[in-house]
Amino acid sequence: MSDFGHRDHYVAAVKAKIFSINPSINVVDITHSIENFNIAHGAYILKSVFRDFPQGTVHLVSVNAPSGPEERAVAVKLEEHYFVGIDNGLFSLLSDKAPTAIVELTKDSSYNRVFPEKTTLAAAAVSLASGTNIYNIGTQISSLRTMLNRQVRVSKTQIGGHVIHVDQYGNLVTNISEELFYKQKNNRSFTVHFARETVDFIADSYDSMDHGDCLVLFNSNGFLEIAISQGNASELLGMGFDTPVMINFSEV
Amino acid sequence: MSDFGHRDHYVAAVKAKIFSINPSINVVDITHSIENFNIAHGAYILKSVFRDFPQGTVHLVSVNAPSGPEERAVAVKLEEHYFVGIDNGLFSLLSDKAPTAIVELTKDSSYNRVFPEKTTLAAAAVSLASGTNIYNIGTQISSLRTMLNRQVRVSKTQIGGHVIHVDQYGNLVTNISEELFYKQKNNRSFTVHFARETVDFIADSYDSMDHGDCLVLFNSNGFLEIAISQGNASELLGMGFDTPVMINFSEV
Amino acid sequence: MSDFGHRDHYVAAVKAKIFSINPSINVVDITHSIENFNIAHGAYILKSVFRDFPQGTVHLVSVNAPSGPEERAVAVKLEEHYFVGIDNGLFSLLSDKAPTAIVELTKDSSYNRVFPEKTTLAAAAVSLASGTNIYNIGTQISSLRTMLNRQVRVSKTQIGGHVIHVDQYGNLVTNISEELFYKQKNNRSFTVHFARETVDFIADSYDSMDHGDCLVLFNSNGFLEIAISQGNASELLGMGFDTPVMINFSEV
Repeated sequence: MSDFGHRDHYVAAVKAKIFSINPSINVVDITHSIENFNIAHGAYILKSVFRDFPQGTVHLVSVNAPSGPEERAVAVKLEEHYFVGIDNGLFSLLSDKAPTAIVELTKDSSYNRVFPEKTTLAAAAVSLASGTNIYNIGTQISSLRTMLNRQVRVSKTQIGGHVIHVDQYGNLVTNISEELFYKQKNNRSFTVHFARETVDFIADSYDSMDHGDCLVLFNSNGFLEIAISQGNASELLGMGFDTPVMINFSEV
Repeated sequence: MSDFGHRDHYVAAVKAKIFSINPSINVVDITHSIENFNIAHGAYILKSVFRDFPQGTVHLVSVNAPSGPEERAVAVKLEEHYFVGIDNGLFSLLSDKAPTAIVELTKDSSYNRVFPEKTTLAAAAVSLASGTNIYNIGTQISSLRTMLNRQVRVSKTQIGGHVIHVDQYGNLVTNISEELFYKQKNNRSFTVHFARETVDFIADSYDSMDHGDCLVLFNSNGFLEIAISQGNASELLGMGFDTPVMINFSEV
Repeated sequence: MSDFGHRDHYVAAVKAKIFSINPSINVVDITHSIENFNIAHGAYILKSVFRDFPQGTVHLVSVNAPSGPEERAVAVKLEEHYFVGIDNGLFSLLSDKAPTAIVELTKDSSYNRVFPEKTTLAAAAVSLASGTNIYNIGTQISSLRTMLNRQVRVSKTQIGGHVIHVDQYGNLVTNISEELFYKQKNNRSFTVHFARETVDFIADSYDSMDHGDCLVLFNSNGFLEIAISQGNASELLGMGFDTPVMINFSEV
């Protein structure tokens, strides 16, 4: 996964390196269209999909971000998946669980600060994918650079969240989880508020409403999503990244 | 093939599921840039390419479209190829031949109406690709939801068709086939009319004319295509999806 | 690599053909977003990446360009890599070294001038990738169609080059090589001039400067690149393809 885009040779250069070392490795592109330098976008996408891959999968991540001269290339083991990349904070956003191993990759003479993905990072990913122990490709370190996700505010009668992603269809994904919602709901009725809209039920699919109607549902990752049947919710509602979404629960 | 686009994790989630079940399956992307909800676009692309794949190939298709609460997930055997997806009409546009098998996929507890591609559909595709008999993954049904392609009108002296696709280069693909053209032509001279242009011969390649000149040719799928040598015919002629194209044959 | 784009079925049709002949071939996409008909863009991308692949790799290239009725389909062996495509000049821009083998592909009855990539070119690429000798798939010819890259002008006190590529991040890649720079520099101080900016040192990574500051560095292919830390240099400096870049060396 990267913000390399599709116009350049960067993705191919990394794959060429991988196949040069081990031609039998199975490489799957998650996406190379992460917005340039946008760590939050990258973290959202990777968090949404990494658990769908088999355990032991190695995820090579490159979302360019300022990391300063003390920049570290790391490999991380987290929920039985491996992650390789620059320690820019993205890895700390993937899970509430703690990593079970973190190593700083050894920078040998081939390390290239301009394009480390092609050299050190690709080599580390191949080593892990080929079964090398994580402690053999670097030096154990104790912690990663940490970033904080936007938090959800919760009170007895309210959940306050935000849009954290706008997808290809204009659907608005929020940071309000299904688990939290039903725990707070506790058999009460509710209303979801966003833009000038109010919705008082959870739909079970995108096309359960008439065309053009607003709906909210929990997506396959368990997060509240705002959509418009056969339409682009982001454009039609004028909502985007970071727009607030509020759920009110009735007093019993 | 899907309208998932490249910015999100949807494509990767489906592939992750496929490789989790069977890591040795060979997955080829046709395109994930089908216009959102555009069944005609999806059908055109799939129809143009599926026969290039080896017989027995499984085509997993997801072009989102309203299918209502009675939505069915199906697997179809057609011209010795397999197709898996929601029965929204697209499959009926692929061929003039009838399917040799149609089954409705069993929806087990993992069925997810929000993102069925990741669960039921991916599992069905893997089963078929791994050699499972189509009747073992669902219940036989008698017919698919049917849509009609724009038809070509034919008279003694005319063929009337339409643009059904504008490609990356701005070339305009019509629904007039080479077979029909030569059958009607029958040694007569002809003129092709579109926008304000008239062309009276079939070119044999895109660069057989001077730069900027209009030409018509039969593409590698056997359909009449309007192009401008080294230019974008759609923009320069102001033509797009559904623009009429007429062929007149001389009286003998 | 091609200028096929991602909206159509062209890429998939070629892959389908390849896998129909030999399903075990490993196909890597370099990019299909070469600008339509832009040979210089295609040559830049391919030149930047082909050496990262293992020796013996076959590169199937399709950048549409006018080649006239005497169009030739060729296979080329160059620096132990194979290239297959239409002889439109692109191959002559890849290396200063001469090809060690050039053959014109035999056009059998399946040759299709509208979409040769799907037939003759794909078949030739598969043959080479499967180990067939290059002289068995065509007739030896003595030379390729030749194009010239923009040349760098060099004097005692100056190097004058041009921007040859703008990448996904807006970074401006020039045709001034690291090797030439240090040979001319010869311990003198220097200034790099472009747009209204002057820079007097080489950075070692994109984020070695404050946000928004201009920097120049040598990229991983050894060419001078102009960038803005966390910004889009092309947009912010108003520079693009072919903009001149000048290096002045001090008199000793």
